Amino acid sequence: MEDLLEFLNGIYPFPLGLKDELTPMIKSLRLSEKEYLLRAGDVCKNIYFIRKGLLRCYYLKETKEVSAWFLKEVDTIVSVESFYDQLPSYEFIQALEDCELFYISFDELEEIYGKYLEFNVIGRKLTTHYLKMWTRQLRYLRSMSALERYQELLAKEPELLLRVPLKLLASYLDMEPETLSRMRGLGN
Amino acid sequence: MEDLLEFLNGIYPFPLGLKDELTPMIKSLRLSEKEYLLRAGDVCKNIYFIRKGLLRCYYLKETKEVSAWFLKEVDTIVSVESFYDQLPSYEFIQALEDCELFYISFDELEEIYGKYLEFNVIGRKLTTHYLKMWTRQLRYLRSMSALERYQELLAKEPELLLRVPLKLLASYLDMEPETLSRMRGLGN
Repeated sequence: MEDLLEFLNGIYPFPLGLKDELTPMIKSLRLSEKEYLLRAGDVCKNIYFIRKGLLRCYYLKETKEVSAWFLKEVDTIVSVESFYDQLPSYEFIQALEDCELFYISFDELEEIYGKYLEFNVIGRKLTTHYLKMWTRQLRYLRSMSALERYQELLAKEPELLLRVPLKLLASYLDMEPETLSRMRGLGN
Repeated sequence: MEDLLEFLNGIYPFPLGLKDELTPMIKSLRLSEKEYLLRAGDVCKNIYFIRKGLLRCYYLKETKEVSAWFLKEVDTIVSVESFYDQLPSYEFIQALEDCELFYISFDELEEIYGKYLEFNVIGRKLTTHYLKMWTRQLRYLRSMSALERYQELLAKEPELLLRVPLKLLASYLDMEPETLSRMRGLGN
């Protein structure tokens, strides 16, 4: 857990008392490959920090699974629309590898935000990081060709090509598995 | 300007001194319909608060304009990928109506964040608001049919149907103008 505390403290230095108050709030959890962290319809009650492993957020388009995100070590993971308003989720979150996670509940996070203004700097910066990621993803989907999206993935997140099954990666890139397979074969 | 200060103060109460320090940093700007706030390639140096009017963020897909966002009264507007890292923008931001805006520069916003921890609560909450909007938009684009996206717009942002030209709205909904025109005609 020390590495998570260091990571957060590195974003903005903890004031006196925060570490002692936060430590007992942080719980840990292990997930096996294919296990679910959240299912659509359930409320996402915790914010998770990925210590090890890779998870996928997806939703259903009719009966087809559409991968929205792949998140891995050092990422924070929540179902955004569910967690922040404590409403039922539209998304599933599933482990694609054996995972080790830390988490804090919504209520305890709110308590920390209320007691320690400094933690709001950390929250603001992490939220901004994901806002930038989401903005980039929207731009990729809206303005790029399939080939350009593949090339961006190669440049920005090449390890996903090794860690994520091709079929799941194809839906993330909004293309057919055959298209992705062909691009990989061409060595683009 | 009093209404902007009240809006921000309503998110989290201002501590002593913040109002006096913030007030001279806030500048105002008027844009006429069709005028540009930002062009792709330029750095978005300010964060804008829309007092009146409607603006469109768009990018080019080859030579075609793709509308990413429509933002209006009470919204905050930046080119996310440009503003937070002070890098050249991928987006254009254009006024679709005559607009009145307030704005603060990136540097002055950072100064306020550094001096007044309370302002980070406001920043965190506003950023979370847009993260939720972006998440919803990604979900609409990824998992909904054209008809479902139109119905969501009718339910959540019906005034855009009155204020935004059909062609621009169609690209926002990721459909052909003819498809949107037909749905409107059917009274869906």
